[in-house]
Amino acid sequence: MSHSSRYVCFAKANSLLLPHALFGSQSPTGVHSAQASIGGQWYSCTCLSFLPLQHSVEETAAECKRLGATVQAFVVDCSKREEIYSTAEKVKQEIGDVSILVNNAGVITAADFLSTQDHQIERMFEVNILAHMWTTKAFLPTMMKNNHGHIVTVASAAGHFVISYMVTYCSSKFAAVGLHKALTEELPTLGKDGIKTTCLSPVFINTGFVKNPSTRLGKILEIEEVVEALMEGILTNRKMVFVPPHLNIALLSEMLLPERALAVLKKLTNVKFDAVIGQKSTQ
Amino acid sequence: MSHSSRYVCFAKANSLLLPHALFGSQSPTGVHSAQASIGGQWYSCTCLSFLPLQHSVEETAAECKRLGATVQAFVVDCSKREEIYSTAEKVKQEIGDVSILVNNAGVITAADFLSTQDHQIERMFEVNILAHMWTTKAFLPTMMKNNHGHIVTVASAAGHFVISYMVTYCSSKFAAVGLHKALTEELPTLGKDGIKTTCLSPVFINTGFVKNPSTRLGKILEIEEVVEALMEGILTNRKMVFVPPHLNIALLSEMLLPERALAVLKKLTNVKFDAVIGQKSTQ
Repeated sequence: MSHSSRYVCFAKANSLLLPHALFGSQSPTGVHSAQASIGGQWYSCTCLSFLPLQHSVEETAAECKRLGATVQAFVVDCSKREEIYSTAEKVKQEIGDVSILVNNAGVITAADFLSTQDHQIERMFEVNILAHMWTTKAFLPTMMKNNHGHIVTVASAAGHFVISYMVTYCSSKFAAVGLHKALTEELPTLGKDGIKTTCLSPVFINTGFVKNPSTRLGKILEIEEVVEALMEGILTNRKMVFVPPHLNIALLSEMLLPERALAVLKKLTNVKFDAVIGQKSTQ
Repeated sequence: MSHSSRYVCFAKANSLLLPHALFGSQSPTGVHSAQASIGGQWYSCTCLSFLPLQHSVEETAAECKRLGATVQAFVVDCSKREEIYSTAEKVKQEIGDVSILVNNAGVITAADFLSTQDHQIERMFEVNILAHMWTTKAFLPTMMKNNHGHIVTVASAAGHFVISYMVTYCSSKFAAVGLHKALTEELPTLGKDGIKTTCLSPVFINTGFVKNPSTRLGKILEIEEVVEALMEGILTNRKMVFVPPHLNIALLSEMLLPERALAVLKKLTNVKFDAVIGQKSTQ
């Protein structure tokens, strides 16, 4: 992994760097912990994010510059394949090779399945999974040539466990986990074992992405601890990073415990968040 | 589940009924085993399939009629949302309520990730997962009103296990498994426990869908055994139908065995099929 003080950002709007590009924090404090977790070293990295507020790109860029990083921001609508490709070309010309691609674009509509509008379903698939395909297609060829690079998929616990009122989101995140696993299988088959992959699967993070999340067991994550886990995962080439780590035990339990026990466990955790329910979709 | 001798088919082209609609058999022999496995009873069912040869719709319809079923064929391109919706309207007007929706549409491009063209990636997502969303949106409202119905997702072993040269296909099938699981979670949450769900996850089937498949362990499935397993799964409300059934043990092993042991196992199975490798995508 090449060390560099250069970050590149694809952002629809307000996010720029790890951890901002990753989690769209409104405040720039996360930057400190990201820097801390990699021992003051910055890594060359393309972050792909999709967040609503244009002015935050500059805010975040300024904060990162203040911390000593070289920052360049590119704005792209991750739901548009052609825009991703043309911005990727610009990145290659202005910045050069990308050694770490962080596919973090993500949108959500929390609603029961029939209340989820068609354009919302399409957007979740365009941004949460297809964008990952287009950025990977754009940056993987150089990584293949060099047999060197790292592709990071920001998925979600919802890519492994399902939850009511997030049917489409879960489906799109299952797709992201599938893409990560399949790519992780294919790259060594092609002799490209120098290209590493990491998939991040956190539970709810305190970013406003999901409105008013709460759960009786476990807790809502803070940005800093997720960034720290991901940075460590990238630096140690871990393939799957669950946050909290005991999620993989939960995954195992899901396969081993009888359905009724799982229902009781689910009731105990009592996951809640704001969602649209019972509103007929207009398609 | 309502008994009826009426089948409805959404088909791009050559497939019509269970098991034809399910697996696109070129020969109509599968029909017999489907009929046998449900004791001579036919079930009202909407099959959604996507196969290449127009004339086979009539062939299959004729065979099913000869066996005593009432058959009506509708042709639809499952990659087009509007076409699915308009045909669904026609189905409702001409046939009435649908009690079993079988989402079987499926396309594949077997190639390494960078050799897979953009339009092939988009098509796999449109047909293998988004079409499931549109048909479900079309037929679920009546099922909700009646608190009665069955949604069948034809996924694949590739929705649980990954395989090189099928990266996008795996991702789209992971999405289908995620949709099935999330819908299975949400329907009872909404009080609709009368609507059942079944997901079919078979390994390679001898249909020509994948060219020249072979494996040293296990075997290539025949259409009849997959149909039989699915029909039994539907009639007994099983949520996940693996064919062969020991796939769930394999899934558990994947979580418990160390990576190196899994690599040895994978080498032993020696899965092979025709795939495009190393051909740069034209996008």
